[in-house]
Amino acid sequence: MSELPHEELAEERVDEDVDPLAAALKERDEYLDALQRLKAEFDNYRKRVARDQQELVARATERLVKELLPVLDDLERALEAAAEHEEAKLEEGVRLVHRALADALAKEGVAEIPTAGTFDPHTQEALLSQPSEAEEGTVIQVLQKGYLLGDRVLRPARVVVSSG
Amino acid sequence: MSELPHEELAEERVDEDVDPLAAALKERDEYLDALQRLKAEFDNYRKRVARDQQELVARATERLVKELLPVLDDLERALEAAAEHEEAKLEEGVRLVHRALADALAKEGVAEIPTAGTFDPHTQEALLSQPSEAEEGTVIQVLQKGYLLGDRVLRPARVVVSSG
Repeated sequence: MSELPHEELAEERVDEDVDPLAAALKERDEYLDALQRLKAEFDNYRKRVARDQQELVARATERLVKELLPVLDDLERALEAAAEHEEAKLEEGVRLVHRALADALAKEGVAEIPTAGTFDPHTQEALLSQPSEAEEGTVIQVLQKGYLLGDRVLRPARVVVSSG
Repeated sequence: MSELPHEELAEERVDEDVDPLAAALKERDEYLDALQRLKAEFDNYRKRVARDQQELVARATERLVKELLPVLDDLERALEAAAEHEEAKLEEGVRLVHRALADALAKEGVAEIPTAGTFDPHTQEALLSQPSEAEEGTVIQVLQKGYLLGDRVLRPARVVVSSG
């Protein structure tokens, strides 16, 4: 977007002394012209933004999905090993799949919520409170792991807390 | 964005007969004012768009990642079953994981590339050509499954083609 044509017109405005009406009309027309051009530019920008946003979401999805295809491959290989009763191969396959998926999620910024120490109500959910040897308010068991995406809680960790 | 102020001014323009210079100056100022307001609106819009796009990508990622957490849970349960040598449970777990991941990907629009019939160079890659009883140019074996996302090839199917 260019600057408003105010300054460009400074020189010409000297001519107002000669014919103020002609000068005012000229300025008026120039502002109207600038206004119409800016309006057209704005409209085009809006349309482009709508297209860009669809494209952006599509690319974000595509990138993540592409990373998951090898996970799907490994799972299928693990299932083939199971069908052939190759238990060691099956277990190894599951381990590979787990690592690949965990890595893909970590790459997206997903991190496990830590549960050692004192219960944290911002990232954890206490499902039970049980007497234990641990200090009151300490997490003593994790029933379901929790995950963060950046600083947002995707899912709180579901835990059992010591009642002392 | 409001309409250009041209028409609103039509009534006032009748007064031009009374004082054409005053009328021209008034119009000039109104156009300049509209131009400045539109410029400010455009600037704000641009800033909002930049923020929105980040948010959009973050939400697209978050949605998909959230769907993958149960897959990760199932994988961990399968690994626990493996550690306890509960082979049937392990196999069942892998089956669950596979279905959950395949469902999550299908929901994103991912589909397997069909490989029955004649070789399709747009979605398949022929790694080998082998003599067989099948008609020449027919896919006789799939070495790696291929996937589409919508109408885009995420990964071609890698196949063996009959040389007749």
